[in-house]
Amino acid sequence: MIRFESDYLEGALPEIMKALGDTNLVQTPGYGEDEYCAAAAAKIREKCAAPAAAVHFLVGGTPANLIAITAALRPHQAAIAAETGHIAVHESGAVEGSGHKVITLPSADGKIGAAQVAALVDAHWADSTHEHQAQPKLVYVSQPTENGTVYSLAELEALAAVCREKGLYLYVDGARLGAALVSSDVGLSDLARLADAFYIGGTKLGALFGEALVILNPELDRDFRYIEKQRGGMLAKGRLLGVQFLTLMTDGLYERTARREVELALRLRAAFEARGWPLYYDSPTNQQFPVVPDAALEKLAEKYSFSDWGRVDEAHRVVRFCTSWATREEDVDALIKDIAALA
Amino acid sequence: MIRFESDYLEGALPEIMKALGDTNLVQTPGYGEDEYCAAAAAKIREKCAAPAAAVHFLVGGTPANLIAITAALRPHQAAIAAETGHIAVHESGAVEGSGHKVITLPSADGKIGAAQVAALVDAHWADSTHEHQAQPKLVYVSQPTENGTVYSLAELEALAAVCREKGLYLYVDGARLGAALVSSDVGLSDLARLADAFYIGGTKLGALFGEALVILNPELDRDFRYIEKQRGGMLAKGRLLGVQFLTLMTDGLYERTARREVELALRLRAAFEARGWPLYYDSPTNQQFPVVPDAALEKLAEKYSFSDWGRVDEAHRVVRFCTSWATREEDVDALIKDIAALA
Amino acid sequence: MIRFESDYLEGALPEIMKALGDTNLVQTPGYGEDEYCAAAAAKIREKCAAPAAAVHFLVGGTPANLIAITAALRPHQAAIAAETGHIAVHESGAVEGSGHKVITLPSADGKIGAAQVAALVDAHWADSTHEHQAQPKLVYVSQPTENGTVYSLAELEALAAVCREKGLYLYVDGARLGAALVSSDVGLSDLARLADAFYIGGTKLGALFGEALVILNPELDRDFRYIEKQRGGMLAKGRLLGVQFLTLMTDGLYERTARREVELALRLRAAFEARGWPLYYDSPTNQQFPVVPDAALEKLAEKYSFSDWGRVDEAHRVVRFCTSWATREEDVDALIKDIAALA
Amino acid sequence: MIRFESDYLEGALPEIMKALGDTNLVQTPGYGEDEYCAAAAAKIREKCAAPAAAVHFLVGGTPANLIAITAALRPHQAAIAAETGHIAVHESGAVEGSGHKVITLPSADGKIGAAQVAALVDAHWADSTHEHQAQPKLVYVSQPTENGTVYSLAELEALAAVCREKGLYLYVDGARLGAALVSSDVGLSDLARLADAFYIGGTKLGALFGEALVILNPELDRDFRYIEKQRGGMLAKGRLLGVQFLTLMTDGLYERTARREVELALRLRAAFEARGWPLYYDSPTNQQFPVVPDAALEKLAEKYSFSDWGRVDEAHRVVRFCTSWATREEDVDALIKDIAALA
Repeated sequence: MIRFESDYLEGALPEIMKALGDTNLVQTPGYGEDEYCAAAAAKIREKCAAPAAAVHFLVGGTPANLIAITAALRPHQAAIAAETGHIAVHESGAVEGSGHKVITLPSADGKIGAAQVAALVDAHWADSTHEHQAQPKLVYVSQPTENGTVYSLAELEALAAVCREKGLYLYVDGARLGAALVSSDVGLSDLARLADAFYIGGTKLGALFGEALVILNPELDRDFRYIEKQRGGMLAKGRLLGVQFLTLMTDGLYERTARREVELALRLRAAFEARGWPLYYDSPTNQQFPVVPDAALEKLAEKYSFSDWGRVDEAHRVVRFCTSWATREEDVDALIKDIAALA
Repeated sequence: MIRFESDYLEGALPEIMKALGDTNLVQTPGYGEDEYCAAAAAKIREKCAAPAAAVHFLVGGTPANLIAITAALRPHQAAIAAETGHIAVHESGAVEGSGHKVITLPSADGKIGAAQVAALVDAHWADSTHEHQAQPKLVYVSQPTENGTVYSLAELEALAAVCREKGLYLYVDGARLGAALVSSDVGLSDLARLADAFYIGGTKLGALFGEALVILNPELDRDFRYIEKQRGGMLAKGRLLGVQFLTLMTDGLYERTARREVELALRLRAAFEARGWPLYYDSPTNQQFPVVPDAALEKLAEKYSFSDWGRVDEAHRVVRFCTSWATREEDVDALIKDIAALA
Repeated sequence: MIRFESDYLEGALPEIMKALGDTNLVQTPGYGEDEYCAAAAAKIREKCAAPAAAVHFLVGGTPANLIAITAALRPHQAAIAAETGHIAVHESGAVEGSGHKVITLPSADGKIGAAQVAALVDAHWADSTHEHQAQPKLVYVSQPTENGTVYSLAELEALAAVCREKGLYLYVDGARLGAALVSSDVGLSDLARLADAFYIGGTKLGALFGEALVILNPELDRDFRYIEKQRGGMLAKGRLLGVQFLTLMTDGLYERTARREVELALRLRAAFEARGWPLYYDSPTNQQFPVVPDAALEKLAEKYSFSDWGRVDEAHRVVRFCTSWATREEDVDALIKDIAALA
Repeated sequence: MIRFESDYLEGALPEIMKALGDTNLVQTPGYGEDEYCAAAAAKIREKCAAPAAAVHFLVGGTPANLIAITAALRPHQAAIAAETGHIAVHESGAVEGSGHKVITLPSADGKIGAAQVAALVDAHWADSTHEHQAQPKLVYVSQPTENGTVYSLAELEALAAVCREKGLYLYVDGARLGAALVSSDVGLSDLARLADAFYIGGTKLGALFGEALVILNPELDRDFRYIEKQRGGMLAKGRLLGVQFLTLMTDGLYERTARREVELALRLRAAFEARGWPLYYDSPTNQQFPVVPDAALEKLAEKYSFSDWGRVDEAHRVVRFCTSWATREEDVDALIKDIAALA
């Protein structure tokens, strides 16, 4: 079986495995207070052009989202997300488990717009009973989204402007941020300029595990490490995160890895299009969502794995093909050939 | 100003004020362990034909909902409600504040259907990643709904059947239950037979304050008083709730009061219809929602108060007129006359 | 049975019952936004010499403590209390239920001292692993304490000074505040000057129910009403609280009621002392804690009720006698006579 | 600097690094549903002689404790721990952050006794106001304790018997369980027989990270993975935990590693005793707590690192020396020699 169902099927990039091996016997303080974390944070601040940013390394995306949002909100405050947002549907109610409502906005492609946010917030404050409702306070977006789509710089600027105007925080989930960095006009320094906090995903981009949370707004960073510890998010051997991110952030490894996986994905996309299979979302990233006839899927499934994304009509389903740092070129070649050859 | 904007504008029924006065110097134990609470609970069990039901008296609707749902759910479990449900939009995120997601279903009139619930729950369990989602466990409905509409017995039976089949709890918010009891085919014993828990609203039906939570399913009653105390819901002089409910439940006062307020509301409804103002929701209860031309509203507002429910089109708004135990017949007469007389 | 076991056995002062009756049919907005609440708040601000104070009326002591502390603390922050403090032992873990640790300090008489607080906070910050501990942020004291003792002005000044110096909030639970106002040198304006928030207890001083939370520090008042609503603490007919506190705060009714109950309690205290029964706590308030021989208790229990406070040695127990607004002078006379007459 | 201050200063055992490297490119499903986790769980079940046990792999000790306790308790229920217990003082209020009080018992050496637990629980239920208190429901102990001491089998049997009798869960934190397995008469099968849940610590015994939570009581395992996900504890590449525990549980690596570190620690202990430095706790495990004169500490600190545990008197401090899988024999030799040579 050649696997395309997700981008966390394997371990880590060889560079990362080597770095972990090389540093294995070095003695460091625990809990992220080591030199590797310090060095990785410095690299990230530099790449973000954000010398005052706080950087915290967390083990996964759900703890990153959960802890950042917990640190940001007071008890009655809510996060706003697309109805398909990860915190809305794929974290088992983690944000609610921390006491906060997730208010959802309709979205066709995983993105939400500045106007939607503005309308929701204005309606809240215009309602004379607003104290009887959860107070919208933080906008959660993913870059790229769960559907592989990306925000343009203009779109993100507009969201950030609305957030500033309305007194909201802007938080960007970057589980697959690398893929967006190489396929949109939004760079790390843009994120650092526009968001109150965002994270650079490692788990889905070549690390064993780990996300680098970058906090720009000091309000969200107050006593962050207490909350990180309280929510179970502080790794004892924190240096493991430092070592990995230091490696990813050195010599362009992160971007290079992202570029490669996106290129492979775009080759798949071209093959789907050539075959006449429409793309359910217009994704320029490493996740592709073709609408495929049932018969073709059945045939492909004999040799390839992919994720089911739901039925479109009686004869077609949307499926997801994912590339990763570990995807082999020959496997992409084989799939493309097999797609073209389908009867 | 003659007020129709809500049903909690005044104090309490004279019978209740008298009972509170008559018992004022009687000495009782605190925290609901007094003879009045016991007697009121006995009356309620009798009226519900539910000799084994637990009855807890709470101060208001939000604490009743919050505490009942907190007692029912484990951390990862969610309540299902109409998108207009009180817990979804008018309790400042109280359920989320207790750690639980509220999953909403679309609703045109405040009601949700058994098929909707079944589809949602089936989709949850059919999803291979269901452990990554909040688990639906409790169905929240209001009888009558926030829009004045009522579930029929058949509808409630269907909801209860789905809940039993899918392993869900059925919880009924009865903030204005009296109005439904006299305008639907659902009686107290039906609720007791079908729901796992429901509350009989006092605050909006002639009491100073107070709701009687009736728990039929012993799973929801385990250690209930601990949770009631922990969430700040246990009244020191609990006898105040017992005295009020004992009064309401004696000699049909609760139903008689409901019947009167509903009759007055239906007279208003007839006046709206006679005038050609459509009703936004088909409410047989004490809340009526006519769609009224702006000019007429402006005129009426000089003499009467009512609640704005939103704009329908450029020239019309939906408004809410509410009757209560304290509504005076002559005020209804005057309003009807003024409606008819509008140019 | 003549009852001395607590001060919430009866309803309310006749003045309050009358005021509730007189205003019963007045129509007001709900949720505390009525003119009675406004007038009561104005009276309280005046008595506190705190024109900028926010005043919120809550139904009981546990919701007042829970909601105020929830509004004050961030997730990782803790309250400091005496090991006998009400939030530590008599609220079913309400503060923890809202996510916050209660750090306890040893106390012989219900009070904690400024030096204790300073030592605890200094130890926290001196510990290099302080981020692995809950962060002390709020000092909770009761005036009078659960043991009837009172803080002197000097003691409260010292606590407040430590709080200011260490960046802590000072919160005063005044469930029986009246009794302390008339038996200590701490007045309302002192509390308003020294505390960040405190509440004036009504439930245990002649009201049917209700506590007036006075917030001096605007940080604790931000969005307070959202949190009040979210935690189920907002009464629909909030005017009931306004009417009661307006009555209590008019013409010195609150202090007069307190003075009377304390005088009766001190007569009991004198009788205990005359009899040679030591007082377990040195209480100048309406709760008295004599250490009584078992035989005497057995005899008294035939005619009087009181609370058991625990065994002291094989032949003695501490018990609590409580007076209230409703205690009758002749009952106190009878008890004193019976104590003197015991064989 | 030769470091003895903790047992998580380095990476992982070479066997683990090798296994991670060997499996790096193997493709597996995520979230712990891979064959390595299955195989590691099978090994653990076998070693525990508990064929029905559920095994969940978590990233660290705080998430393991937090998630297990969250899964076990209803909202009003509390954990009981020694006042020095890790959940009581070193997890930033994580258990309270999940809504539960931690009730502490005094302890001289980190252990609590069956009689203490029984007395506390009996007092709770004997108190007529027990509903106003958090309900004790789970006993938390560490094996070994934070002070290096261990429970004997008889002590653990007694605790388990009290728990069964009183309806409590028994939960054992095994952050350093290996050290107790080789220095006490309590084996894995004893733990599996006596505890409702316990975890086998990897982070502090040679793994990069990871703890294996073994749940014996199915009540604690209901929907565990939802709660694990909700609290941010589910690792995307869960196989990393499976691979590590499979390695640790194969060919006695876990016990062999523990035995070695404990032997080195006991050599240090002998050196402390030979020098006449009393041991503050009687620890047979890899943490040793000598009471050392200030002058000697100052001298040792030039060459060795260790943890300060507090001042004993004007001239002495307790310090902690920790050995680990990575401690080198020659470093222990050097330290022993230097201790003997101190003037």
